This record gives sequence, C-alpha cells and structure tokens, in this order.
Amino acid sequence: MASIKDVANLAGVAVGTVSRVINNAGAVKPATRDKVKAAIEQLNYVPDEVARNFKMQKSKMVALMLPSIWNPFFSELAYYIEDELDRSGFKLMLCNSGGKPEKELYYFDMLKQNKVAGIVGITYNDIESSVSAGIPMISIDRHFSKQITCVTSDNFEGGRIALRKLVQAGSKKPAFLGNVPSMYSETLRRKDGFVHEAQALGIPYAVYEEPDAIKNEDEYYSNFLRRHPDIDGVFAITDMTAARYIETAKEAGIRVPEDVKVIGYDGIQDHPYFHPVLSTIRQPVEEMARTAVKLLLGKVEGEALEQEVFCIPVTYRAGETT
Amino acid sequence: MASIKDVANLAGVAVGTVSRVINNAGAVKPATRDKVKAAIEQLNYVPDEVARNFKMQKSKMVALMLPSIWNPFFSELAYYIEDELDRSGFKLMLCNSGGKPEKELYYFDMLKQNKVAGIVGITYNDIESSVSAGIPMISIDRHFSKQITCVTSDNFEGGRIALRKLVQAGSKKPAFLGNVPSMYSETLRRKDGFVHEAQALGIPYAVYEEPDAIKNEDEYYSNFLRRHPDIDGVFAITDMTAARYIETAKEAGIRVPEDVKVIGYDGIQDHPYFHPVLSTIRQPVEEMARTAVKLLLGKVEGEALEQEVFCIPVTYRAGETT
Repeated sequence: MASIKDVANLAGVAVGTVSRVINNAGAVKPATRDKVKAAIEQLNYVPDEVARNFKMQKSKMVALMLPSIWNPFFSELAYYIEDELDRSGFKLMLCNSGGKPEKELYYFDMLKQNKVAGIVGITYNDIESSVSAGIPMISIDRHFSKQITCVTSDNFEGGRIALRKLVQAGSKKPAFLGNVPSMYSETLRRKDGFVHEAQALGIPYAVYEEPDAIKNEDEYYSNFLRRHPDIDGVFAITDMTAARYIETAKEAGIRVPEDVKVIGYDGIQDHPYFHPVLSTIRQPVEEMARTAVKLLLGKVEGEALEQEVFCIPVTYRAGETT
Repeated sequence: MASIKDVANLAGVAVGTVSRVINNAGAVKPATRDKVKAAIEQLNYVPDEVARNFKMQKSKMVALMLPSIWNPFFSELAYYIEDELDRSGFKLMLCNSGGKPEKELYYFDMLKQNKVAGIVGITYNDIESSVSAGIPMISIDRHFSKQITCVTSDNFEGGRIALRKLVQAGSKKPAFLGNVPSMYSETLRRKDGFVHEAQALGIPYAVYEEPDAIKNEDEYYSNFLRRHPDIDGVFAITDMTAARYIETAKEAGIRVPEDVKVIGYDGIQDHPYFHPVLSTIRQPVEEMARTAVKLLLGKVEGEALEQEVFCIPVTYRAGETT
C-alpha cells in the first residue's frame, strides 16, 4: 500500500506539502496541489495514516530563540528558517531572548507542554539542566553538549582561509582580533583555524582577546592598537568587530587596506552602498537555516541524529579592505 | 469589588502581567510577581473574572506579517513588537509574506479560525475583501481603508523637516527622489510634506518618481542624474534610495555633501562604522511598534478605535551627507 512518502516522492514535494493538500490546510500553489492530487490518484493512496502522522492537535509551531532579531546576521537567519518551515507547513514563533535565562526557560516549558514542536536556537545560557537528550532542539553556532545537535559554519576552515588571504594580500604579521565567550562556542574555532594555518605556514602572528561581554569597547580597540603596533593584517571574529577596528585605526592614522589588511566574518553587508565594503568570510546563512530546520523536523518525527555538529562550508568574499 | 485592572494599576503593571501571575503562565520577574501578589492581597481581589477575560483556549498568539524580516527597518520593528507582546503575555508568530497574496490570505484564514488573536502587518495586497471592520488588525505604514487602523511615522512632517534641513544646509534647488506605489500608502505623504514646505518657502524644487517596483534600478538613478543636473539637494524616500543615489552620483563625479546635500528616511544605521553615515528622518520605530501592539490588544479585547491613522512624530538625525 502506498504511503504518504510515496506520494511526496512521486509528486516531488515534501511530505508536509502532501499533508497540507489532504488536510486542505496551509498555502499550496495551485500547480503543486495538482501534482499532489495526480500522485494520490496514480498511487491509489488512501490517506488514512495522515490522521496518525499529522494529528491536528500536534503543534505545527517551531520556536526560534535568538538574542535579538534586530541584528543583520540573525534576521537573515530568521528569514530562511521561516521560509524552510513554511515549506513543511510549520509556523515560526519568534523569541528575542535578549540572553535572559527566564525567557529561554519559558520556551522550554512550552516545549514540554507540547505547545511548540521544537526549538531552533542561539542561546547564551547553560540550558543542559533543562534540555535532555531526545528533546527536539537544534542549536546554531553554539555547541553545548553532545545532547544538542548543532549547525555551524565551518569556523575552523574560515579561520584558515582568512589567514591565507591576509598573507596573499601582503600581510607579514597578521593578528586575530576576538573575544572569549563565557561558554564554549563553535565560534572559537575561527581563532583555532587562523592559528593553525599561521603555524603551518610559519607566519608570525598575534592573538588579541578579551572575555565576552567586552565592558569598555573603546578601550578594547585602543589597547589592541597600543599593544600590537607592528601588525599589518587583522582577522576579526565578526564583521562588526572588523568595522569598529577600522574606524578606530582610521582615527589613529592607520589606513586600510594600505597599512593593514582586514578580513571579517559573517558577510552582513548585502549591498555595496556603505563603505568600507568588508573583505569577509561569508557565513552560509541560507544553508545553515535550511539544514537546521530539516534536522529539527526530522527529530520531531523521531529520527535519531548521529552527527553532533553539522559544519557548513564557508566562502571568502573580497571587499575593499584587503 | 476590585477588578483585575485595579490590581494592575496598584501594582503598576499591565493587565496581562497580572493575568500571567494568576495563571502562573509566562515569564514574570520575581520582583514583579511579588508586587502583583501584594496588590491582590491589599485589594482583596478574587480572580474569578480572570477565567472570563483570559480564557486559556483563547489564542495568545499575534501574527506579524512583513514582506521580509531580512530588512533592517522591519527587523527593528519586529524586535520591539515582540518585546511589547511579551509584556502582555502574547507570543509573536512571524510571517515573511514576500508580498505573496496566498501567504497573506493564509494568515487571515488562521485569524478566522481563532488560531491567532490578531495581526500586525505590512501588507502589499488589496486585502479589503478579506478583512472587514472589527477584525483585530493593525497596519503599519500602509493605510488601506477606514476599516484598518494604521500606525505610521509622521511622513508629512518628515518631508517638511527634510526640505527645511536641505535649505539650511545651503541647497538652492532640492529634489524629491521617490517612487509611486501601486496602492495608496502613507509613505506618499513624505513627498507631500516636502512639496508643501518648498512651496510655502518659495523654494524651487524638483520631483522625480517612477512607479514601484522599479524595474531597472541603474536606469532609475542615471535618468535622475541626467534629467536633473542642476539640483543641489536630495530628499530620498528611504535611506537605501539615498545610499544608492550617493553611490551613483559618486561615479558621476558628484561629491556629497559638497555638491549635493542628501537626506534619507528611516534611520536604518544604528552605528557610525559604515559610511556615509546618512543624514536622515528617523522613524520612531520603537514607539510605532509599541503603539501598534497596544492598539491591537485593545481591539482583541473588543475596544473600538475612533482614530484611523496614528501618526508618531519623527526626528531629524544629522549625518555626513548634509
């Protein structure tokens, strides 16, 4: 007997789309609807199991927990997460946690009450005590434990690429400019990749870090300039760090890229109308978002995940700062 | 007998917060919880009516419908809308409509099925046939009809301020650079204010517009430069239009602000690290968001709204382009 998956395969759509057509719920393009109906007819599919698999009382809501949607990296991520959820008939509930534990824990409570099917999140708190194995949650960027699957960009490779690109642009003594988060985060691997590559190539390098959250931003940058007057390349942990370094350097009479080459990380600039257009390691935001949603919906359906960290390749984007 | 409103007033919190404390649902700070409990005790409040007013089966979800969260103006708006909803124990469901009617209509269906309590939205489609008077919806920026309450920035006053600031900066012949949306939108008032003020002051001015959506962006800007070689001031309908004009002008050898003063609208730049930092009419995003939510939740509770358009004052923010 044909299953809903057979229908989906034949129609070339997601299972969620077939379900939406059968239940007449959710937005489906007329052309897609026709394809699904044709597949149902061809396979003689009887949608009895739909009632079991897609019980209407089951939540079709996924919570997205972010420190703040008002951040270009997070809002791009949210855009693609909502788009991918929509394709499977799920809705997105947005939570700006602001890093506040009580707000994050509130969402975990909702998860326990089955009001959300799962969580995609960037959290800052130690949530291991609240989340145990098997609960559908996918973490982005921040890898906490073996129990929570994490989707990240390939931070280590990004660091390696940045070092090589700085050297290619003529830097003889590049520096890493970053911070040390209070908890382990995959973003630390940006530094690891940078240092690894510098050592492998025998390039002298510097590392400048302060514990997150940086209390005095002005001091952070001016201390860096004072302590490392000889560097001629900077790999900054984020684009914003790169932009702020460039501004401080400019005030100190340092020209970018003439005196110092600069590479950031994220790729937050999506148009070339504001300057400097940063040379940067571009996060594969769309693929990270779609991967996170697919993994989460798999978990919601009971799939076990073997791989703990899913690393998505990054690309280098040349700008005006190298 | 004391009502829930009396408790809220005495405790100095929103009614929703009192409800959350009583129902033990939602995140409430311990200090706030104590204040509410003290007020309940002091007033001898018996929370029987809570069951009537805040029936748990009633949806505590509000849909936010935007063309795309991946836009700095919309993501700032979403940030404050979520924050304001959270204060009243409501959650935000995010919908990137992409301007697609089928996605927008899907949310109106959910509203009809009481799965969302209301909608805050920026929609591009003619939804009058789907939405009738009394349905809880608040529109932002785009004013459709007398039936949908709209919250906007004071676009007319913004246009007047922009004209005056251009003239103060030395512009003798300023131009308005905009587009004509396919439907009436409050944003058209930006031009009206600009023209009104130029006529009142007896300043010669130019207006350059093309129908939205602009098909060939490059042509749009180069045509403007060709047709209006004599202008020395630009009020652009959005910051992005201003930035793109400046880039095109630079390629043509026009210096900003030396040759042409430029003022945008929105205030999307929230830090001074990317240049040019635009002189702009800053939208009161936070107040627009909080006002929209308060109006919506009032409508959800059955309040009738007499004012059709709520106009929030704007401010001028000087940057590097005037």
